[in-house]
Amino acid sequence: MSQSLLEELIEKLQCLPGVGSKTAQRMAYHLLQRKRQAGKELANVLVDAMENIGQCGQCRNYTEQELCRICANPKRAEDKILCVVETASDLLAVEQSGQYSGLYFVLHGTLSPIDGIGPSEIGLFQLETFLQQNDITEVILALNPSVEGEATSQFIADICRTENVSVSRIAHGIPIGGELEMVDTSTISHALMGRKSY
Amino acid sequence: MSQSLLEELIEKLQCLPGVGSKTAQRMAYHLLQRKRQAGKELANVLVDAMENIGQCGQCRNYTEQELCRICANPKRAEDKILCVVETASDLLAVEQSGQYSGLYFVLHGTLSPIDGIGPSEIGLFQLETFLQQNDITEVILALNPSVEGEATSQFIADICRTENVSVSRIAHGIPIGGELEMVDTSTISHALMGRKSY
Repeated sequence: MSQSLLEELIEKLQCLPGVGSKTAQRMAYHLLQRKRQAGKELANVLVDAMENIGQCGQCRNYTEQELCRICANPKRAEDKILCVVETASDLLAVEQSGQYSGLYFVLHGTLSPIDGIGPSEIGLFQLETFLQQNDITEVILALNPSVEGEATSQFIADICRTENVSVSRIAHGIPIGGELEMVDTSTISHALMGRKSY
Repeated sequence: MSQSLLEELIEKLQCLPGVGSKTAQRMAYHLLQRKRQAGKELANVLVDAMENIGQCGQCRNYTEQELCRICANPKRAEDKILCVVETASDLLAVEQSGQYSGLYFVLHGTLSPIDGIGPSEIGLFQLETFLQQNDITEVILALNPSVEGEATSQFIADICRTENVSVSRIAHGIPIGGELEMVDTSTISHALMGRKSY
């Protein structure tokens, strides 16, 4: 027997991360029962977003414009700093801290030769060109402390040195609100090595 | 500043039950990064479902057809039994138990005069007409054991008696796999009252 429209909706909802068949079922019934208009609005925005959201020509962040809002804002270039992040959600996390008002560059991944991801796939030549053509004095590396993140940080640091741009990385250590006994050993050793005089 | 398309997508995703801003953000980035085609397919099914899924003319279950699959299947009428449930997901739960092969009737709610939900809002006149025009020998009430569920069960039982149809309700008791000490007192008293000789 062919699939009913409801079954199809329940199946397609499972393309969302963390949504299995039970959750999808609950979502479908919820929309049908109470939120038909909101469901239609979601569908419209969804198709629009999937078709029209591309990458910012300068920082590779997601945007439906030529340049994202951050790159389009001339104030953001005033500090002459650029923060490199792995994903657009990392950018949002840094942005939401309220501590940073410079530019960004989104890699959308890390170097991973085994998966065929080299410097061009994560935009490193575009980053190099940007550093050559713009007045940036410092690059802050805010990549994850994974093996791939470390290798990618190293690669970008080399580019920065070639372009005579100073390069730093965000501190690793005990998270604020974290309990020392719950923190993994590698974080503790980073925290010890990164200690500051009090 | 007006909302970007991405912000709009994140906002609209929050019409889904159990989805807050963080989850919506994760969903949006996941779709943009890896599932653009699936996202578009979801949008198409979603708008189709919101516009075209209505209620089955006979049992009020959700369907895009005139009659749902269960009502359209002549075998389901052979047992001459009808199970009344509160919601379409309750119907699915009973169906998935594999123990029932009769017809259903979905109320989409319970009697609640204070909210303006009377017999006609939950299709009770339609149910009465169905019992008059069709050969049903037993109505099984599978409503939730809430105050509203009890009142609605009582109302439907009265209709059944008027129409000379026998009426039963599903058993309440200790769930299979449930531990006695974890079960609430009201369930235990139902289980005691409903005891069977061993």
